[in-house]
Amino acid sequence: MTWIDDPGFAADKPFGPQTLPYGVVAEGVAVRVGDRALPLAPIAASFTEDLRPLLTAPTLDPLLAAGRQAWSRLRARLRELVTAPTAPEGAVLVPVDSARLPFTVGDYVDFYSSRHHAENVGRMFRPNAEPLLPNWTHLPVGYHGRAGTVYVSGTDIRRPHGQRAGEDGPVFGPTTRLDIEAEIGFVCGGPVAGRVPTAAAPDHVFGVVTANDWSARDIQAWEYAPLGPFLGKSFATSIGAWITPLEAFSAARVPTEAPGKLLDYLVEDQPWGLDISIEVAWNGVVVARPPFRTMSYSFAQQLAHMTVNGATVRPGDLFASGTVSGPEKHERGSFLELSWAGTEPIDTGDGKRTFLEDGDTVTITATAPGPDGSVIGLSEVTGTVVAAD
Amino acid sequence: MTWIDDPGFAADKPFGPQTLPYGVVAEGVAVRVGDRALPLAPIAASFTEDLRPLLTAPTLDPLLAAGRQAWSRLRARLRELVTAPTAPEGAVLVPVDSARLPFTVGDYVDFYSSRHHAENVGRMFRPNAEPLLPNWTHLPVGYHGRAGTVYVSGTDIRRPHGQRAGEDGPVFGPTTRLDIEAEIGFVCGGPVAGRVPTAAAPDHVFGVVTANDWSARDIQAWEYAPLGPFLGKSFATSIGAWITPLEAFSAARVPTEAPGKLLDYLVEDQPWGLDISIEVAWNGVVVARPPFRTMSYSFAQQLAHMTVNGATVRPGDLFASGTVSGPEKHERGSFLELSWAGTEPIDTGDGKRTFLEDGDTVTITATAPGPDGSVIGLSEVTGTVVAAD
Repeated sequence: MTWIDDPGFAADKPFGPQTLPYGVVAEGVAVRVGDRALPLAPIAASFTEDLRPLLTAPTLDPLLAAGRQAWSRLRARLRELVTAPTAPEGAVLVPVDSARLPFTVGDYVDFYSSRHHAENVGRMFRPNAEPLLPNWTHLPVGYHGRAGTVYVSGTDIRRPHGQRAGEDGPVFGPTTRLDIEAEIGFVCGGPVAGRVPTAAAPDHVFGVVTANDWSARDIQAWEYAPLGPFLGKSFATSIGAWITPLEAFSAARVPTEAPGKLLDYLVEDQPWGLDISIEVAWNGVVVARPPFRTMSYSFAQQLAHMTVNGATVRPGDLFASGTVSGPEKHERGSFLELSWAGTEPIDTGDGKRTFLEDGDTVTITATAPGPDGSVIGLSEVTGTVVAAD
Repeated sequence: MTWIDDPGFAADKPFGPQTLPYGVVAEGVAVRVGDRALPLAPIAASFTEDLRPLLTAPTLDPLLAAGRQAWSRLRARLRELVTAPTAPEGAVLVPVDSARLPFTVGDYVDFYSSRHHAENVGRMFRPNAEPLLPNWTHLPVGYHGRAGTVYVSGTDIRRPHGQRAGEDGPVFGPTTRLDIEAEIGFVCGGPVAGRVPTAAAPDHVFGVVTANDWSARDIQAWEYAPLGPFLGKSFATSIGAWITPLEAFSAARVPTEAPGKLLDYLVEDQPWGLDISIEVAWNGVVVARPPFRTMSYSFAQQLAHMTVNGATVRPGDLFASGTVSGPEKHERGSFLELSWAGTEPIDTGDGKRTFLEDGDTVTITATAPGPDGSVIGLSEVTGTVVAAD
């Protein structure tokens, strides 16, 4: 029996001792135990001296920079402390809701690695052509997003203004096609490095978060040629407040669905696909269950690609998988796909919808299999749409 | 007669007292005076107390955050000090060559705002279609680049590896079409803000730099559909080491060439085009003179567009104009255009070239008219290509 008296802190619950995600609350760096947070500064004396500055910092930035060996030692010692019968000297438990954005986002890259998503988008927008473009089966297509507008779960999302195509030229106003993209994000850490081979990915990926890449489809459609998405995406990307360590996914690893014959630098010697099950709830009603195991490129392949030209990866860099969509209709990770470009309204708890209305709330949660039949949780990412100003 | 005994510190030289660009040398924050640098920490006592922390910081980050009012007061006092007959207590002059990247780059956005460049690229790649895409005349097309690979002038540029199209599918190796893009960059500062109207741009733009957006054309051509440039650009962007304050350009303002009828949020009440003359030297031989006054969107319009969806701009954000190309052949700002996609070799000091070879050095310099017939300088951006590893 552990000293942590929280019903959510159990092996069959997402935030039991097998998960231990990191975040930042008002009291500083903390670890999530069930539905409560354990700030680490007050119990820093229970860790070896080299780890203490990582725990008393105002953000996770120093921990991200510390590297794999420190991450493993910290996690092992945390496991001992949270499963002990008595609390370490100074321990307090606080609510999880005060969690803020836990690290300084360096560069943010968004990929496009779900074949089903890419095919759906291709069928909608290029109905008379092959749904996949020729490069898609050879590399994880991606682009840089805006790091300065990555927000923590719970942040309201203001409907963006922008240009969209009209009958007599472009018109300006609030987007009429506000959408989500249900994704999984990867938070980078360890030393600054270029050309990270797939086998070295665990040295440069600290942990995993849920992500919602909010998208204004009408703005995006008008602006994106030839340089890609810009204002249709840059108003907001939300991520879960608690970062689940990569180590927690040891029992969730699966092969990715190979997109085709790959160049050597994209071949994995071990599988880094992850069997994460995602749920998308629209005003409380689950409208989609995208399966992350159906992705065609793993985070290790994405990181190898992102750095193969010598571009460095730094602690705090964030990259996301791209919209996760499975082969079935109820597995699609965007409302664009679920409503087939607005032609097939979706039944939510609050009536039929195609795209988001003001006041709508979208919450994305995710879990993965843990060791010995346990469950690994990813912290929810939620946001409510507020009217354009 | 000023106490600064440097022949370059004169009104008819680029770095006279009318320019006073900021940078960071080994001794900390400094201002460039002719061909020497004046570190500001040793003379901090000559400034009002509120300005001193900006001068003793290790980077320009606090100065960027301080805002327009502080920038103006600092510049006015600096002008007094550097034009006085005697040196302020503690002043020393040091070489300019130790200058490092002077600020922490937040988000980096690259625009595409030269009509001549966009038309040239369109003619080369879509010979049977209108050279400009429909959105180009209505908005400054742009995309996010990689902030973590923005380097200071003088940094060697390693030839990147990547995928490019081959006859039997993609091949992998060092780029065979390494190119430059001669651009002007804008360094943001002031308070974090969203929806910056064109009239407020001076409150959020600290200064101006030369920029070279190194590009691997073969990698870019294969990867860019549908999400835009990624690895073809992300290996390196170089900027000049010294940031010329926006205030220095008061006599250089000109109207931009309007791209067409603009939506209200892009209309300027005052012109923010800048009459900057650029020179591109390839191994010491000037091969192009791109005229910045021919751009179709100003930095104020670019900033208004970048934030019109509510995306915030932060101190340290950097955005660049896009390749600057004038209407004449010798005014083109990329080797792609100068060599017409490699079909018309360019005579450099070191033989005929289409794209860059290992060992080549490219140096971009720029000047603008200053008050009373003086010259405003932008610090050079230079880089030498080293072989792929």
